[in-house]
Amino acid sequence: MKVTVLGAGAWGTAFGQVLADAGNEVTMWAREPEIVTGIRDHHHNAMRLPSVKRLPETMTATGDRAEAVKDAKIVVVAIAAQHAREALEPFTALIESDAIVVSLMKGIEHESGKRMDEVVREALGGLPAARFAAISGPNLSKEIADRKPGATVVACEDIMEARVVAKACTTPYFKAFVTTDVVGLEMCGSLKNVIALAVGMSRGAGYGENTAAMIETRGLAELVALGSALHVETKTFFGLAGVGDLIATCGSPLSRNYVFGANLGRGMSVEEAAKASNGVAEGVPTTQAVVKLGERLGVQTPLCSAMNDVLTRGLSCEQMLEELFAGDITEE
Amino acid sequence: MKVTVLGAGAWGTAFGQVLADAGNEVTMWAREPEIVTGIRDHHHNAMRLPSVKRLPETMTATGDRAEAVKDAKIVVVAIAAQHAREALEPFTALIESDAIVVSLMKGIEHESGKRMDEVVREALGGLPAARFAAISGPNLSKEIADRKPGATVVACEDIMEARVVAKACTTPYFKAFVTTDVVGLEMCGSLKNVIALAVGMSRGAGYGENTAAMIETRGLAELVALGSALHVETKTFFGLAGVGDLIATCGSPLSRNYVFGANLGRGMSVEEAAKASNGVAEGVPTTQAVVKLGERLGVQTPLCSAMNDVLTRGLSCEQMLEELFAGDITEE
Repeated sequence: MKVTVLGAGAWGTAFGQVLADAGNEVTMWAREPEIVTGIRDHHHNAMRLPSVKRLPETMTATGDRAEAVKDAKIVVVAIAAQHAREALEPFTALIESDAIVVSLMKGIEHESGKRMDEVVREALGGLPAARFAAISGPNLSKEIADRKPGATVVACEDIMEARVVAKACTTPYFKAFVTTDVVGLEMCGSLKNVIALAVGMSRGAGYGENTAAMIETRGLAELVALGSALHVETKTFFGLAGVGDLIATCGSPLSRNYVFGANLGRGMSVEEAAKASNGVAEGVPTTQAVVKLGERLGVQTPLCSAMNDVLTRGLSCEQMLEELFAGDITEE
Repeated sequence: MKVTVLGAGAWGTAFGQVLADAGNEVTMWAREPEIVTGIRDHHHNAMRLPSVKRLPETMTATGDRAEAVKDAKIVVVAIAAQHAREALEPFTALIESDAIVVSLMKGIEHESGKRMDEVVREALGGLPAARFAAISGPNLSKEIADRKPGATVVACEDIMEARVVAKACTTPYFKAFVTTDVVGLEMCGSLKNVIALAVGMSRGAGYGENTAAMIETRGLAELVALGSALHVETKTFFGLAGVGDLIATCGSPLSRNYVFGANLGRGMSVEEAAKASNGVAEGVPTTQAVVKLGERLGVQTPLCSAMNDVLTRGLSCEQMLEELFAGDITEE
């Protein structure tokens, strides 16, 4: 089966390898000519995934949009969240009418406040829900590129289509589960960035496993409370795309949110941290969005609110934890 | 208020310091005369918690049982799980009739298969449920001894008593939540050892964050399934005593279960790992107990079963993951 991946960053390329390992003919589409020739002619993505010395023979690449998606049964989108809409629009008329479009992206479109499922479906001229799937889980791309064992979740409102996608990315080292809960999965993917920011901060301030575990657990509780208020299945939050992704993200000191938080924890201001990271991390605008969402829904979000005070009022990590620890003894 | 801690290991001593920091007069009871004189005369537990150079002035110690518990409003038990019953029995007539007894212990009594709440209440001559509390959470003792920020859960069937205990251990760096779900809390504390064993094994085999996160999440799902079948509130599993403790335990390479698993992952047999660890880790007998429990309740426990095959049939980590990855595409 021909499967196309739009975007050849680290995650897109690693996932392309998974698809090839699962027996598909994989075409990567990239804007950059040097990435296209690298993958097509040398089976190597030197810019974005240099650690894989030789990508599978069944992986090729093109810079031509029409060629990329022609005859593809599955089109995977792995483009930076803030550029997804603009990058996808030219593909609208080109994607086969029976193809499933799968998003690997996490985050919220800052300008519109929309989730990635909304952005992708709108950008592709109103793609039906049954033809859209999202993938999320504890999937650090470097480890998947190394073929270390991992698992993920494929969400599609049509469970049969979710199974088709899951089958297309199942290999001896990568297991896919399915769900119909697209919104829950998308919420996990964006809200975990706020928690990663807070955990990074606590690590930067020199705190240990207990503090990180506390922040992750309390953050998860806020995510669940928000989801419940939105009538989203909370089961997803406790699965691979929720707890699982949270554990992997907070366990890896490489993510942008973690690094940004760690710099705050070391005493940098938001401006200084932004300078050090070449821009603010995804979790920064998401924090504000979550606090607003909580206010709108009447849901208390003490961790996100305290984190927001760090970002907007310059609270230190110590003061933030004091704020979080304040108040009476309550049930969890 | 006088609070007594029975057992002066690392966790008992660190928790004693929390109680002292919270404003209580703390008496540690220990069998070993050198620990008693160390704490009483030098405010130092050189054998079990050497990292704390000077314990609070309001902490003392005794080797005398009657003196230890006389007038104590709260008696905290921090004795190795397998010795708890025998060690507690002599205290039955000595503990004040209105004192609350609080267990810090995790695990299952191997001989009887009983939970710690059952063991403690039985050993103390049928202590009423309203006078028993258990504490569990992401509480690595070394970090709490260093006064790094952390949180925990106090469980007692009588929520007012849980609040009394929670208040007695609340400090600016330690926050306690309350619940009435004693059984759920106890289940978390023992079953996480199986998961820690599996995560340790995957780390020992050289796998990374994705694999660990997958094992933790799938293990949690089995814990929840077992709890549901036993009509235990699943909320506890997703809180600090469940997910939280799991994250902290699996994030720290120091626990006995983790080390034992890591040695298996490096290719040692169970016998070799037991030799290296001076005995089998708590998670080993617990794994068998969980598999049996699952069979009895008709609940599938693929992770615990695969781990049991490692322990009883000598499966390698790779084979264990193969077993776990086998089967059709399913909902999470």
